[in-house]
Amino acid sequence: MDEMFETLVENIKELIHSKNWAKLKVILEDMNEQDIAELFMELEERELTLVYRLLPKELAAEVFVNMEPEYQEALIRAFSDSELREVLDELYVDDAVDMIEEMPATLVKRILRHTDPEVRKSINEILRYPEDSAGSIMTIEYVDLKRNMTVADAFTRIRRTGVDKETIYTCYVTDSKRKLKGVVTAKDLLLSDESDLIRDIMEPNVISASTFEDKEVVADMFQKYDLLALPVVDSEERLVGIVTVDDAIDVLQEEATEDIEKMAAITPTDKPYLKMSVIENFKKRIPWLMLLMVSATFTEKIINHFEGTLTACVALTAFIPMLTGTCGNCGAQSSATIIRGLSLGDIEFRDTLKVIFKELRIALVCGIALAIVNFAKLMIFDSVGPWVALVVSFTMIMAVVFAKVVGSVLPVIAKKVGFDPAVMSSPFISTIVDAVTLLIYFTVATNILNLK
Amino acid sequence: MDEMFETLVENIKELIHSKNWAKLKVILEDMNEQDIAELFMELEERELTLVYRLLPKELAAEVFVNMEPEYQEALIRAFSDSELREVLDELYVDDAVDMIEEMPATLVKRILRHTDPEVRKSINEILRYPEDSAGSIMTIEYVDLKRNMTVADAFTRIRRTGVDKETIYTCYVTDSKRKLKGVVTAKDLLLSDESDLIRDIMEPNVISASTFEDKEVVADMFQKYDLLALPVVDSEERLVGIVTVDDAIDVLQEEATEDIEKMAAITPTDKPYLKMSVIENFKKRIPWLMLLMVSATFTEKIINHFEGTLTACVALTAFIPMLTGTCGNCGAQSSATIIRGLSLGDIEFRDTLKVIFKELRIALVCGIALAIVNFAKLMIFDSVGPWVALVVSFTMIMAVVFAKVVGSVLPVIAKKVGFDPAVMSSPFISTIVDAVTLLIYFTVATNILNLK
Repeated sequence: MDEMFETLVENIKELIHSKNWAKLKVILEDMNEQDIAELFMELEERELTLVYRLLPKELAAEVFVNMEPEYQEALIRAFSDSELREVLDELYVDDAVDMIEEMPATLVKRILRHTDPEVRKSINEILRYPEDSAGSIMTIEYVDLKRNMTVADAFTRIRRTGVDKETIYTCYVTDSKRKLKGVVTAKDLLLSDESDLIRDIMEPNVISASTFEDKEVVADMFQKYDLLALPVVDSEERLVGIVTVDDAIDVLQEEATEDIEKMAAITPTDKPYLKMSVIENFKKRIPWLMLLMVSATFTEKIINHFEGTLTACVALTAFIPMLTGTCGNCGAQSSATIIRGLSLGDIEFRDTLKVIFKELRIALVCGIALAIVNFAKLMIFDSVGPWVALVVSFTMIMAVVFAKVVGSVLPVIAKKVGFDPAVMSSPFISTIVDAVTLLIYFTVATNILNLK
Repeated sequence: MDEMFETLVENIKELIHSKNWAKLKVILEDMNEQDIAELFMELEERELTLVYRLLPKELAAEVFVNMEPEYQEALIRAFSDSELREVLDELYVDDAVDMIEEMPATLVKRILRHTDPEVRKSINEILRYPEDSAGSIMTIEYVDLKRNMTVADAFTRIRRTGVDKETIYTCYVTDSKRKLKGVVTAKDLLLSDESDLIRDIMEPNVISASTFEDKEVVADMFQKYDLLALPVVDSEERLVGIVTVDDAIDVLQEEATEDIEKMAAITPTDKPYLKMSVIENFKKRIPWLMLLMVSATFTEKIINHFEGTLTACVALTAFIPMLTGTCGNCGAQSSATIIRGLSLGDIEFRDTLKVIFKELRIALVCGIALAIVNFAKLMIFDSVGPWVALVVSFTMIMAVVFAKVVGSVLPVIAKKVGFDPAVMSSPFISTIVDAVTLLIYFTVATNILNLK
């Protein structure tokens, strides 16, 4: 696949070099917009602007939408005013908004100047919604019907509106004040008689979202209710736009990426890794590293406090990384499980006690199993004394129980008090677990080995 | 939301208790199938079988599909043979397959006995595909057209087939041997003249998947190409079924959950956390914990080897958890970034060198920043000597660079040799990073402090 793609890029570059436009056109016409976009993004800027002009008008706009902002920018800079207007005319409002959000201010001005005034107004409205709201990801292209229309009227209206594939299959019924009154699917229309009234075939209980609803909540509704589109209403229940399933999928994927990044102590951004500079990556990573490094002062203080114990039995030092590492992994397992469960809605706040009790039991079984294997290993392979082996193994059980309970409780509490549970994950929990594991270790050692 | 739901559950239970079926029916008729399913799953088994019978036939089947397997099982056990047949008649084949996969063998037999023979054959065929293949998640309900049909013929065929919402909007054109020849959307049909021929309006370049294609690859295609449905073909290019977008969303979410679980050293399963027993959870977690605990033997050996260094300068011990912890976090950041990038297709194997070079530079900047802050902290707050502070800070830079490079390279290599990159994440990398950090630490200390 990868190699086929590279061969294709080579062929295209050769055809551009030999100015064989006719053959290029034939090749491009057989490809779909997403694949053409990926191909074009492998070209030099000069090559890109040349081949882009070979595309038929409608396909050109679709390819444009599928390209990364930096390539869109290069194209817009190369466009004449009339070329720019042609592309803009073909764009859907939500795609235009996505593009404008990524462009430098000077280009945004030029883009808006060449946009149809009606569309410009809509773009400006959508740009005003908060970044992560339903309003910011909705499109204003949809089919609206009235209750006293017939099915035949509805088909005429669909043909006249003629909008995008995701937006045509669910039609929304509004009253004279544009309030949302019902929903009719293209399937309902196709299976009804031409003379049936919309009011009789529409579903009056509509699942909708407010413009200010969090886009992650909206995306979760698509998954829960298996939707293709979701209507967005303003504070007076007036229909203002719809969110389509392709955008919901993107939000679900972004949401998972954000969780993974937070769980690895990274500040999330929307930008793909390879597009970010070293300094941008540094800024995403350093705050958490600093915070966690400074928090590790606790482990230093604990070790210093028990310096006497360590001097009396230097062998104990060797097991510190193994103990903190294993307990850190135990905490990471619990927190990852709970964070993902919360994010998928499998776990709710009312499950807290059930979760703690379950983790407690899992921790006991894991802790005992680890302790037994560890005790055997210490006695057989590391030939330490039975008392040291006992100290290490007993610490293991207690620290594993602590790690798993903390790892499961903190994300739930974070969610309850309004933080993102994903922050309470592996790195953060390891820092707490490290300190407590050491405290348990030295206390157990001091008592069992009768040190100091 | 949560509280409203609990009040509703209370109300329903009261109405069941007072046998107020009429009012119950009115309440249920205003709700959608997903919400009714959630409500029903809060009831006792006896209550559930009572209220379920209040639902109209078609709604009952939809509610049934949306319930967890254990509740479906309870209902099937309570059904008479004719009730069972009624529900089964309303199910789509892919939903029936999903259900059967979760049922005990005795119930499966009873279910298949009451299924229409034609459908039973399809169910058995789908059950034969490998668990994670396109074939296993496809449905066999779709609209197929022939090239010489007119648009009017197509509408008649859609009305006669009358299938589910996801499966009606993309129609597939096949030849006499059932080979896939093209695709026509409902939008194309609606915007064409009734007398147009399908061969003239169909798109002949169809994006399709083979029955044995990995379901994750199929789900990624939905995201890449913004599809509502994807045709599945056998080895002879014959159309055998389609995958719909709602199933693709579920696969994308499962995929992200699996990545998160693997990144936290958990063996993934499909079962939600609260449905798994303590022992099932234990089995998912203990293999990795054991493996990583035993691998920590390296850190023990290294510390034992440098016992002389530690005895000569006990103060060094205090910084071990801070160093291994911080470097572990650095490695975790890199590996999480790269693993997610690989999984989203943002990073390919050909980017390896670019990735290593970028991580190297990020690591240097992070390492130097951490070392400076750490040096200042050690001198000002911990009042250790400047040489010890230098040892710790210098180790920090070198170990951070190592951690970030290893954290980014291992997932890429894993992917190249056919493993899941997600396994090469935080816990695994921490184990390597711990050992190397200690090696660097003691080597630097021995040389700078002139110990032993």
